[in-house]
Amino acid sequence: MTEVITAVYEITAEDPLSRATDVAVEQSHELPTELAPQNAIELSLGLVRSIEQRAGRSALATVDYPVDLAGGELGQLLVLLLGNVSLQDGVRLVDVEIPASLLAALPGPRLGVAGVRELVGEPRHALLATALKPVGMSSEQIAQLAYEIAAGGLHIVKEDQGLANQPWAPFVDRVPRIVEAVRRANTETGGRSVYLPVVNGPAAGFDDQVRFARAQGADGVMVLPGVAGFGSLARAAELFPGGMILSHPSFLGGFTASATHGIAPDVLFGTLLRLAGADASIFPGWGGRFSLTREQCLAIGDAARRPLAGLAPILPAPGGGMSIERAPELLDAFGPDTVFLIGAGLQRGGDPRRAAERLVAATR
Amino acid sequence: MTEVITAVYEITAEDPLSRATDVAVEQSHELPTELAPQNAIELSLGLVRSIEQRAGRSALATVDYPVDLAGGELGQLLVLLLGNVSLQDGVRLVDVEIPASLLAALPGPRLGVAGVRELVGEPRHALLATALKPVGMSSEQIAQLAYEIAAGGLHIVKEDQGLANQPWAPFVDRVPRIVEAVRRANTETGGRSVYLPVVNGPAAGFDDQVRFARAQGADGVMVLPGVAGFGSLARAAELFPGGMILSHPSFLGGFTASATHGIAPDVLFGTLLRLAGADASIFPGWGGRFSLTREQCLAIGDAARRPLAGLAPILPAPGGGMSIERAPELLDAFGPDTVFLIGAGLQRGGDPRRAAERLVAATR
Repeated sequence: MTEVITAVYEITAEDPLSRATDVAVEQSHELPTELAPQNAIELSLGLVRSIEQRAGRSALATVDYPVDLAGGELGQLLVLLLGNVSLQDGVRLVDVEIPASLLAALPGPRLGVAGVRELVGEPRHALLATALKPVGMSSEQIAQLAYEIAAGGLHIVKEDQGLANQPWAPFVDRVPRIVEAVRRANTETGGRSVYLPVVNGPAAGFDDQVRFARAQGADGVMVLPGVAGFGSLARAAELFPGGMILSHPSFLGGFTASATHGIAPDVLFGTLLRLAGADASIFPGWGGRFSLTREQCLAIGDAARRPLAGLAPILPAPGGGMSIERAPELLDAFGPDTVFLIGAGLQRGGDPRRAAERLVAATR
Repeated sequence: MTEVITAVYEITAEDPLSRATDVAVEQSHELPTELAPQNAIELSLGLVRSIEQRAGRSALATVDYPVDLAGGELGQLLVLLLGNVSLQDGVRLVDVEIPASLLAALPGPRLGVAGVRELVGEPRHALLATALKPVGMSSEQIAQLAYEIAAGGLHIVKEDQGLANQPWAPFVDRVPRIVEAVRRANTETGGRSVYLPVVNGPAAGFDDQVRFARAQGADGVMVLPGVAGFGSLARAAELFPGGMILSHPSFLGGFTASATHGIAPDVLFGTLLRLAGADASIFPGWGGRFSLTREQCLAIGDAARRPLAGLAPILPAPGGGMSIERAPELLDAFGPDTVFLIGAGLQRGGDPRRAAERLVAATR
């Protein structure tokens, strides 16, 4: 076997080697090997390299796949790593190692940490972001909220993934108003807050929305790969040169809500979405309304930023739980190359601008 | 509240009402209600309509969402039904009811059962399909296998989801050869087998592949919504008028591999993919290598075909387990409006054509 993609699976089964062998065959040939032609056996069959038994825990199986199985494409890499076996309990993708030749062919982030810092004019400190919500507000109400928060100095004002094309604030009505509001705030304060609308339209509509957002003067877009597909991040980047691409985890949770199947959160929210083209990747932070652990969250941060061939590091974006009180703990844990999402906290007290100012101050 | 989308969740929690209320708020406002403006509370807040406690089982919570929250779009409907709470364990989407006004705005199937039967020239009997595999074969080898199987009378010859753009059989090299092989078989036998290549290229490449497949004379395409996004089915249908759109479950399994989160298989593989535009929806049949139960599989069949406003019924496509021995049992369980997938079974014995002929005869 020449160059390989290496996948590590946590296997919960009585006979982990037998199960791992099934996985390697399922994910490559999907056919009993005695039926495969000799050339396919030599070229394209996955092989179990090792099994590590662990006392009181599931075994770890390391499987090598010939790199050509991915065909140089992200979509097929995902099919290869977990496509069919995603349907099975007892198999969890916990690590992946990809040769530089394949990494070079995948989209990867365009801005990464440095590009986003440049865009928001913040070379050093942690980045702060909020979501415009709730859905149901008029475009004027949303724009007013965006103005307050940008005036308060938050770096990134993004739309909530609940906003789409609802009658209360349709995309083409809302986006220009928010662009104007954030600009006005920046002009008044001398700041450089950026605005990211959410893009989740149907296939052709998706492209139109990204183009519209760019033409109107937004600074990038937020994309939902769990709904729009893993290619949607790179597609948005292609249509929005220089724009920031923020990934939102909506509808991706099937992969991370259980410990015995799916994908380890650092592999999904860190590595795979980085390869797919996210500049920042939102995930549920610990201490919020969701269920990842501190350890899992910090592993996402490592995966997002660790050296990986020539790929730019990206920003982990823990959602939920940031507050003035928790700022020292979270800054200490994640470090400054992080986007901290603040939700309801800014709206409590009725003065989002003042709340934003205080939070910015607390994270310096 | 006027028209509503109704979602039923299975809630595994100590206080199901409290948890269900959290879900209703999370999936609509994503903001504590005391912070929401009055107009949003009136227009766009999800409400728990009822909780049904069940002895020894998880409770059922019925939640009503104002229909406008979906903004008339499939992608946003998915965000609404399970977007954020997909990340949480203890919440499982088990039923959904959608007003006719929204159904009319969603893609839905173009061919459905009747259109596919017309395409393959099979008005009555169960439909049989196979996957061309393993990956690693040359285009010539794959085309030869396609020829044998089409000559044997199988209705649908589709590519395995493992085939992409690998060097051994690149898409543009492989597709025309297989089109030719299946045509030749049809000419010789007077049959009407159809050929569906798999389309999984990156965003712009996806469109190009669908157009290429159509231009070369394929009969439709197989699409992987778990990778390419839920909009990819309708996108393919738009680019391939009259073509059959077959959905493959690769990378969708996070939603169905656990009993305490995600989406019930009939809702995902039946209802939601039907709304998204699949003419046939592949899922792991019972008795194969995967883990859905007989009851879950038959529920998928019901969801795929039950009357639903003006939407055409679609074909459930259980994968794995079909054989001459099991044909009577499976035909009896699913009925004829079904696509039965046969994998390795056809290749065992070394004469795929004869195996196909025998299987076709056994299902008449």
